[in-house]
Amino acid sequence: MTEQKIKVELATTQKEKPAAKELQFGKVFTDHMFIADYSEDKGWFDHRVVPYEPLTLDPAAIIFHYGQTVFEGLKAYLGEDGTIRLFRPEQNMRRMNQSSTRLCMPQIDEEMALEALKQLLKVDKDWIPGEAGTSLYIRPFMIATEPYLGVAPSTKYRFMIILSPVGSYYKEGIHPVKILVENEYVRAVSGGTGTAKTAGNYAASLKAQEIADAKGYSQVLWLDGVEKKYIEEVGSMNVFFKINGEVVTPALNGSILEGITRKSIIEMLKYWGVPVIERRVSMEELKEAHATGDLEEAFGTGTAAVISPIGEFNWQDEKFIVNEGKTGELSKRLYDTLTGIQTGAVEDPFHWIVTID
Amino acid sequence: MTEQKIKVELATTQKEKPAAKELQFGKVFTDHMFIADYSEDKGWFDHRVVPYEPLTLDPAAIIFHYGQTVFEGLKAYLGEDGTIRLFRPEQNMRRMNQSSTRLCMPQIDEEMALEALKQLLKVDKDWIPGEAGTSLYIRPFMIATEPYLGVAPSTKYRFMIILSPVGSYYKEGIHPVKILVENEYVRAVSGGTGTAKTAGNYAASLKAQEIADAKGYSQVLWLDGVEKKYIEEVGSMNVFFKINGEVVTPALNGSILEGITRKSIIEMLKYWGVPVIERRVSMEELKEAHATGDLEEAFGTGTAAVISPIGEFNWQDEKFIVNEGKTGELSKRLYDTLTGIQTGAVEDPFHWIVTID
Repeated sequence: MTEQKIKVELATTQKEKPAAKELQFGKVFTDHMFIADYSEDKGWFDHRVVPYEPLTLDPAAIIFHYGQTVFEGLKAYLGEDGTIRLFRPEQNMRRMNQSSTRLCMPQIDEEMALEALKQLLKVDKDWIPGEAGTSLYIRPFMIATEPYLGVAPSTKYRFMIILSPVGSYYKEGIHPVKILVENEYVRAVSGGTGTAKTAGNYAASLKAQEIADAKGYSQVLWLDGVEKKYIEEVGSMNVFFKINGEVVTPALNGSILEGITRKSIIEMLKYWGVPVIERRVSMEELKEAHATGDLEEAFGTGTAAVISPIGEFNWQDEKFIVNEGKTGELSKRLYDTLTGIQTGAVEDPFHWIVTID
Repeated sequence: MTEQKIKVELATTQKEKPAAKELQFGKVFTDHMFIADYSEDKGWFDHRVVPYEPLTLDPAAIIFHYGQTVFEGLKAYLGEDGTIRLFRPEQNMRRMNQSSTRLCMPQIDEEMALEALKQLLKVDKDWIPGEAGTSLYIRPFMIATEPYLGVAPSTKYRFMIILSPVGSYYKEGIHPVKILVENEYVRAVSGGTGTAKTAGNYAASLKAQEIADAKGYSQVLWLDGVEKKYIEEVGSMNVFFKINGEVVTPALNGSILEGITRKSIIEMLKYWGVPVIERRVSMEELKEAHATGDLEEAFGTGTAAVISPIGEFNWQDEKFIVNEGKTGELSKRLYDTLTGIQTGAVEDPFHWIVTID
């Protein structure tokens, strides 16, 4: 996207906003959305904020057949001080471009995309809920729109941003989840698309999640696709362990998504002086650390839940209870600090927050 | 899809049909399409043949974000006898259901889907080109349509069939292609979605194909994602080798797509009494067979090209020329017989052909 003016067309009617306590995740959308179109000859064009409405696409559009698409997820928070805050939004735009490179899709102008987001948020600012734990979920995404059944990169794309007010991920505050370690299905492998935020990774994950749901587990722990020994991610989150005072998270290996919350947690732990290391972690090591009592805490990190403490692992029908199934002290401190920074309740020494005037 | 009547709404205007010699692959679509919708409470409903027109979908539809979709590809042939022939279409509908199981999508009624295809073909029968090498490409596909940003199977789907007249895959008849063996990128791994015909596999393949194109190779040879030693597929085709009189193809291993042309080639070779075996094949073995002169032929198999002879492999910058870069005798016989059966020029002892009255 080059420096172009963003046209704004306001909706003539406004939808009713749901009450904060009725908010779910990703089911209700605001009155407007941002769109920009791309063609090989013109580049990005027609940047516009328009009323939220259905898309019209040819049935042969590449997105429907070959899944050429990337997306991002971030949140806008309305603080008690009335300020609208974004958490490291430039990181999302940068990662979107990294994902696009893997998927042979065009780059966006990251500053322009951030400017577009700000304009959209100004138009729909009344949709940002202010109650504790609520936020406005932001979904930038790009889809391949050329009608063509050959397997080749599209020559036409659409970049969009849609917004959805969301409730607290945990209705009764932060609480530990039960995790099923997946031994059959694989999320991604080095050389595949695991490091990109693209549709196919999520489509591939549905089956394992379905099995976990049926067994009463809320998320899946993914192992590496080569040896099925090493820990990759949990559900659609990165994963951390506190083992004998040291925080360990699987090193980025070409199949793990580089989470922005993951990166922020590592930076925060270093700032606090808590030992943290990125390295390979096997299930065998985790089992051993549990047996010796060294496994002190475990938690997932992601935009949706921020910090999701893990209270139980089930690996090949063997159950490991972590920290008596309770939220660990470090998990709680990380959650409180990160959500505090996001809402403005806690000082931001990292300069992560971008405010909207 | 249960036994429901298919409504037919004819287009009021008809598009101009391209001349046979101008036909490309998958760029032009016929006047009509088939649609059926699905919801969890109603099952499949509203089966209809309607004018080909754009789809209208919510920007939050799951297909755009999490790629929950499956597809198939097959062809209708117009023989010199004026008969319309389909090649094993029931196999496509069966495989579509297998793909849907992996993607947590609903099953279609395979007989109903075939009936829908026949009805659509009757309406658009004038679009089936009759010139040598041409056909009507058929694309059944299903997409997740529920507007929801949670990572979960959709509760709403749309099943569609669209049609595209296509030219001969080889403008100057069957001729060998050059293949680049891919050592970095991976198509699929056991536990992933490689055996399903789903969008993410194709999105993942674009990058390697882009590199092959730039190096002057027409397709990529995929190796296994675990050891990067064993041969999986070529581009979006299955692959066969004739080594010292025996035909070898990689065994189905949980990451290779079970091609209908692949299956038909194996059945045909057995019928002819040509030794054929499905087993693991390494690049090292192929290199060795080439060095000793035992590698007699190599070819890809798929719906688009039927048989695609391979004249050269490039593995880590080492080039192997197969059969002096010419189309092998067996490759030619398989191509002539299979395309002959498909167009009705050759007898069909396998009862593969389904004709449309």
